[in-house]
Amino acid sequence: MNYPLLLRFLGTICLLIGGSMGFSLPFAFPQFAERTHLPPAAEFEQAGAYGLLASMMVCFVIGLAFRFFGRTHRQGGHLFRKEAMAIVGLSWVSATVLGALPYYFSGTQTTAENPITFIEAMFESQSGFSTTGATVLTDLETPGMVPHCILFWRSWTHFLGGLGIVVLFVAILGQGSAGKAMMRAEMPGPTKDGSMPRMQHTALVFAAIYLGLNVLLTFVYFFEGMSAFDAMCHAFGTMATGGFSTYNRSLGGFDSPLIESTTIAFMVLAGTNFTLLYLTLIGGPRRLVRDVEFRAYVGIIGVVTAGVVFFGMKAGDEGFGSLATATRNGLFQVVSVMTTTGYGTADFDTWNNFGRGILLLLMFVGGCAGSTGGGLKVIRHVLFYKILHLEMERAHRPRVVRPLRISGQAVDDPLLAHNILLYFCLILAIFVFSWLALITFEPNSTWGVVESDVAQQSEVGKQLLKGTLDDKLLDSASAVAATLNNIGPGLGVVGATRNYAGFSQGAKLLFVWLMMLGRVEIFSVLLLFVPSFWRRV
Amino acid sequence: MNYPLLLRFLGTICLLIGGSMGFSLPFAFPQFAERTHLPPAAEFEQAGAYGLLASMMVCFVIGLAFRFFGRTHRQGGHLFRKEAMAIVGLSWVSATVLGALPYYFSGTQTTAENPITFIEAMFESQSGFSTTGATVLTDLETPGMVPHCILFWRSWTHFLGGLGIVVLFVAILGQGSAGKAMMRAEMPGPTKDGSMPRMQHTALVFAAIYLGLNVLLTFVYFFEGMSAFDAMCHAFGTMATGGFSTYNRSLGGFDSPLIESTTIAFMVLAGTNFTLLYLTLIGGPRRLVRDVEFRAYVGIIGVVTAGVVFFGMKAGDEGFGSLATATRNGLFQVVSVMTTTGYGTADFDTWNNFGRGILLLLMFVGGCAGSTGGGLKVIRHVLFYKILHLEMERAHRPRVVRPLRISGQAVDDPLLAHNILLYFCLILAIFVFSWLALITFEPNSTWGVVESDVAQQSEVGKQLLKGTLDDKLLDSASAVAATLNNIGPGLGVVGATRNYAGFSQGAKLLFVWLMMLGRVEIFSVLLLFVPSFWRRV
Repeated sequence: MNYPLLLRFLGTICLLIGGSMGFSLPFAFPQFAERTHLPPAAEFEQAGAYGLLASMMVCFVIGLAFRFFGRTHRQGGHLFRKEAMAIVGLSWVSATVLGALPYYFSGTQTTAENPITFIEAMFESQSGFSTTGATVLTDLETPGMVPHCILFWRSWTHFLGGLGIVVLFVAILGQGSAGKAMMRAEMPGPTKDGSMPRMQHTALVFAAIYLGLNVLLTFVYFFEGMSAFDAMCHAFGTMATGGFSTYNRSLGGFDSPLIESTTIAFMVLAGTNFTLLYLTLIGGPRRLVRDVEFRAYVGIIGVVTAGVVFFGMKAGDEGFGSLATATRNGLFQVVSVMTTTGYGTADFDTWNNFGRGILLLLMFVGGCAGSTGGGLKVIRHVLFYKILHLEMERAHRPRVVRPLRISGQAVDDPLLAHNILLYFCLILAIFVFSWLALITFEPNSTWGVVESDVAQQSEVGKQLLKGTLDDKLLDSASAVAATLNNIGPGLGVVGATRNYAGFSQGAKLLFVWLMMLGRVEIFSVLLLFVPSFWRRV
Repeated sequence: MNYPLLLRFLGTICLLIGGSMGFSLPFAFPQFAERTHLPPAAEFEQAGAYGLLASMMVCFVIGLAFRFFGRTHRQGGHLFRKEAMAIVGLSWVSATVLGALPYYFSGTQTTAENPITFIEAMFESQSGFSTTGATVLTDLETPGMVPHCILFWRSWTHFLGGLGIVVLFVAILGQGSAGKAMMRAEMPGPTKDGSMPRMQHTALVFAAIYLGLNVLLTFVYFFEGMSAFDAMCHAFGTMATGGFSTYNRSLGGFDSPLIESTTIAFMVLAGTNFTLLYLTLIGGPRRLVRDVEFRAYVGIIGVVTAGVVFFGMKAGDEGFGSLATATRNGLFQVVSVMTTTGYGTADFDTWNNFGRGILLLLMFVGGCAGSTGGGLKVIRHVLFYKILHLEMERAHRPRVVRPLRISGQAVDDPLLAHNILLYFCLILAIFVFSWLALITFEPNSTWGVVESDVAQQSEVGKQLLKGTLDDKLLDSASAVAATLNNIGPGLGVVGATRNYAGFSQGAKLLFVWLMMLGRVEIFSVLLLFVPSFWRRV
């Protein structure tokens, strides 16, 4: 392991993060933080501004120190795969920790009584960078609890996370083969036909499209009636497939079909492969239609929405009164979960079982590869289906060997099938063990069980406990799914109308870890915990 | 596809099944059907005996017809892989259907009001043959509802299923390379070091050990106080890792620590690789200790039991009062679920969340390869762990290629890792889609929700519905897990004190299908539904 090189890179990342905090500073002034439905802060938000400044200072000091200690590194030294993976993993760890500082230093409050703990601040920071959108803040509308500049920082981490910390890095500085290795470690999803040969070009195209769509959406939101502040924050949340809002009721707070339809359209775009969007821009829409992943992506959205609307209307769920409102609510929620955004307009936890079940499963589908959407990615599911198909044939015709094909072209990576299957199994294993940890160690009080009630062994207490135990198994599964796949809300205690504030500190730390595993190429994170990885070989 | 050959084989299977029904006939006479705690039937059980005779007749007619239509097959014609898979798949379908006849013809009753439907009879038959032990019969202790000879047939299907219909076939008739191909299609689990080269020898060793242990256990149970009839039925249930009992309270009905400890020991044996038992018999216990799968198997049982006892005592669950009873109850239930037997002495649905969660996960572990235990098999989990380990190294040292090793020897099958991962993914996909089907189409009334209560929209009705919806998601998952892995009981409505009688006919058919998928090599079953499989190529 080339430690000086590692330190120099990390130092630069710290400086970049510190610098990016500066963008949130203006929003401490009331005139910049106008709200759509709420009054802006009455005066300059001291706590928020000083919190940000202190955080920036820490970032700069650490960043400069890292660069100083890494100065022995020769310019132009080669970056190996190992170093690339370490840099990506550690960059995300640094981003999580440094990104937590503004919340912590500004004295943000999770509830009226409780100032944020550092673990909770890390949760919020990781949730932002990983574009999950899960929150521990119970009230976003009281500036005394969350200053506007911190609210902006929260959405701004979505923006940075959606772009990808390393993509940002490569796009700004370019790093030749080093950048290429890092990009591969950060951008999840198998590489596929259509990606351009040179990585820096890909990074620039990705960044340009991402920026362009962010700006476009901000203007659209603005002209649809949002204040500039809200428009920016929600554009970041949408385009990064994050899901942080600036209102307690999420996007439902605007109660505007226009804003909802706009959001649906841009969430679909955000979940599409950005390289494909670029090729469509220069080559016409035929590229889009011919892409097997995009077809599957749109197909799944369509079929699932139809199912949700059908069963929702049949069960007479809330918000499924007429076909129009049912379609509006169903489509919004399906797209929101599928693209891993996690905005809520309706509380899908009150839906019928098909709706709840299918949204839970949809969390594991995710967006397209090369998009900002998280989850397992549509292309992995497409390939999994194709692998199964080939296996069925192999089972009775062992001598017929057919290659795996994507859009008609044979895949030349012999390990692709292996890697896809491995990835599914790995996600499954992480899911299962996290779930077990959560149901074992999380106290029942998170589900509102007062131990003294149970101690009385009254019939009511026992029934309450039994119901709670059942909820715990289910809610925990949905919480793990929602954080591991970077969605945000789940079922029950983490449903659309509630949040993660009630969990214990240990559980929050677990979620921080799961969000990171979900966002970054898994092995880059897991390897950080393997001692032999750190030995100088 | 060589249809005449297929027909001849199937004809023989039908004749064998018909013949095996004859073994149940004597138990229609009261003097053969003595019970431990209950009076035997007062008189000759006409309905049961005639039901059995009619079923035998049907089997013989169909069997002879198949052999007649398949007579054009030349003696000694070659059996290809395709035919072998088709024979195994179709044998199990035939066994399920023919095995259902005795229940149906004898007018067995699921509840006091309802005679068994044919789908329910198929459920019971498949549950027996697949050694699942899930039941739709609510009362086993009233001879008027389930005659003794039918109760014996029920346990006897466990005996046949544990042996394996095709293993029986090969062991009796020997079939050279044909037998080998069929054995491979029926015995689930990857082949491993220690299996003998000649398949018929393996089949005979398997059958001999299986028979020997069945006889031994019958005598042990008998001397521990069971009647001969109960001893036989429970020996079949234990050694096949099935779980059918002849009492409503399952093995808990005896309330005997002696019988429970005996059962624990024999369940552990039944979940061990029979070839390994044979090698241990002739080569000493060192073989047993050196086997990596056996070590993992015993290790998992030990660790999980310790966890269950610890958390059970901490939570003060029922049956966890003292360390001795806690260990007795915990160990019994862990072994029962891990080996996929599914006997109940305690209702683990009332345990704390760790206990419930870990038993649910344990369902997917299963016994050792080459045992009668179902599930995914311990060796697959061991190999999965090793694959992950190798992948972690490959991620940062791509040029270091290490082979997969079992007990120190490199595995020479290049597809092994691929097949293991594929198997996990396949089970996951089947699990997920079955769960979705169940929660979508199963009516809420299965969970005791009276629709009129909800229609009133009273607060109580609403709360009841919400709680039920949550239970439905969870119970359905456990029901799918318990049938797919051939366990039997699960959580909630399919808990140890309840059964599958309440489910709709459609759900029961789904469970029949899942139990079959779990027992037979999956592709042999799936392929039956692929049209191209049936074309003459």
